[in-house]
Amino acid sequence: MVKNMQPIVVLAGGVGAARFLQGVVAALPVRDLTIVGNVGDDTEIAGLHVSPDLDTVLYTLTGESDEERGWGVRGDSSRALERARSLGHDAWFWLGDLDIGLHLTRTEALNAGLPLSAVTTQLAGALGLEDRLVPVTDDRLRTIIETPDGDLDFQTYYVRRGHRDDIVGIRFDGAAAAAPAPGVVDAISRAAAIIVAPSNPLISIGPILAVPGIREALLARSVPCVAVSPIVGGQALRGPAAEMMRSLGLELSPAGVAGLYDGLIDAIVIDDVDHSLAVEVEQRGVAVRITNTIMRDAAARRHVATVALEVAGIRLSA
Amino acid sequence: MVKNMQPIVVLAGGVGAARFLQGVVAALPVRDLTIVGNVGDDTEIAGLHVSPDLDTVLYTLTGESDEERGWGVRGDSSRALERARSLGHDAWFWLGDLDIGLHLTRTEALNAGLPLSAVTTQLAGALGLEDRLVPVTDDRLRTIIETPDGDLDFQTYYVRRGHRDDIVGIRFDGAAAAAPAPGVVDAISRAAAIIVAPSNPLISIGPILAVPGIREALLARSVPCVAVSPIVGGQALRGPAAEMMRSLGLELSPAGVAGLYDGLIDAIVIDDVDHSLAVEVEQRGVAVRITNTIMRDAAARRHVATVALEVAGIRLSA
Repeated sequence: MVKNMQPIVVLAGGVGAARFLQGVVAALPVRDLTIVGNVGDDTEIAGLHVSPDLDTVLYTLTGESDEERGWGVRGDSSRALERARSLGHDAWFWLGDLDIGLHLTRTEALNAGLPLSAVTTQLAGALGLEDRLVPVTDDRLRTIIETPDGDLDFQTYYVRRGHRDDIVGIRFDGAAAAAPAPGVVDAISRAAAIIVAPSNPLISIGPILAVPGIREALLARSVPCVAVSPIVGGQALRGPAAEMMRSLGLELSPAGVAGLYDGLIDAIVIDDVDHSLAVEVEQRGVAVRITNTIMRDAAARRHVATVALEVAGIRLSA
Repeated sequence: MVKNMQPIVVLAGGVGAARFLQGVVAALPVRDLTIVGNVGDDTEIAGLHVSPDLDTVLYTLTGESDEERGWGVRGDSSRALERARSLGHDAWFWLGDLDIGLHLTRTEALNAGLPLSAVTTQLAGALGLEDRLVPVTDDRLRTIIETPDGDLDFQTYYVRRGHRDDIVGIRFDGAAAAAPAPGVVDAISRAAAIIVAPSNPLISIGPILAVPGIREALLARSVPCVAVSPIVGGQALRGPAAEMMRSLGLELSPAGVAGLYDGLIDAIVIDDVDHSLAVEVEQRGVAVRITNTIMRDAAARRHVATVALEVAGIRLSA
């Protein structure tokens, strides 16, 4: 790989995607990498604009992240939040002091009229990210979880209520009127390969696909698009994907994931434990690559990324 | 003094008022004290609602304040702000981590629809304030400094640009449509005495008087209203009052202050150094009490408060 070649595009959610991307970066020391990030779980906490998935990718790839938790900044304090709690604030959403510094910067820039993609570029530059991280859209797009008790915004469903509610539907408010952020469609169109990270298909990749123009750009691709299954052995690698898919009556397997990406992917990387399910996936017209997809450490992350890139036709220098 | 007597009402700005109020509290161990606070210099920093004058009074009376600076919390850190600065935020307004915790709490409550007076009561209760602190209005009121180069909001004029601009006018955006916060007019009407703290008459007390109903309640008083002059020896005790008054062609003296409070005060406490100016003030129909008004330490603050209260007819047990 040399610079100024065609980009590799990765559609990414939060923690799972960030760990996979660590592997991509390790596997491709020289690269033109565009990460298209999810904004459906963005939220406002006391007026501060929080972009959890963008921040997780940013912190992870710049070595700032708290590896244990997967989110937040390693060694961050929470003086502001503890103070707020002591003053009566219902502090259900964790905000570290360094997080707040980033949210302040982002919110101030957004309030001044800068689009989220430009703010993200600024933050990524300040933190030393070498790759291009771009929110799928600069427009307001919010994942809404429909439950028997009514609609919940994603963070209320996930963090505040501990993703225990039954789900009757998921929708993406604002998606229909949203436009892809500058460069997103162009990156997909020029890509050498497209990878769908092992993220929640419903609420991490779903909002990305919901932005008009993204699905069309993927359908028009002339290069491979490869997904890594976030469902392993009937469970989600991380987060609420399993209970969400089950609650919605979706098949909790790589085949179920492939079904959600119908027409959008050419191949899927699935875990060894699911080898018996390969035939079912292939019957959907999606090629299967079986390997160990558990991303426990740096070597494992690099392994998964390497396999996905190879399946996508990217030659890796040994 | 016993509780449930008539309240003593103090109209208050920021640091000067807070120090004076420390004296009032020391002079009146048992009291019914209502502090009417200025909100003209409230601002939003990255979506966080900041009420500098209310916070200064709150921090000072609860022993939290940084005595050296006069504002902020003693020993506060600035991890969030330093982080923001490193990410490109133009951090011209200082925000400590503990400050941010308070601003988060206030902003969240305001965004949930709580009026500022109710939020202030909540914060004051959490910090253990024994007296009643109430913003003059729950409505949006902003002090705008008119300069030859255009309008500046107060914090931009004062903090960001270092109060170096010439002033051609001052106005209070939103004041005409603002209503006094619940209880403010009632407290003034029932008061045993009303004290105007040694605050900037133009931009600390001015916004309070600009709220329809406040001036009328003061004019209708049947008890003494006593001001403490913030101008001593032709200089402001603190802040930009002197350059503002000079810039607007106002007389920089206790007489100038008395003129700004025309009809609203019965007496003014002025400093020993201004004793020769007493006659001029008295010619305006305002009684004068001369004493040392410099509030260097706790004893001095108590002295100034004691004199003002005595002039206002409040008997103090020895």
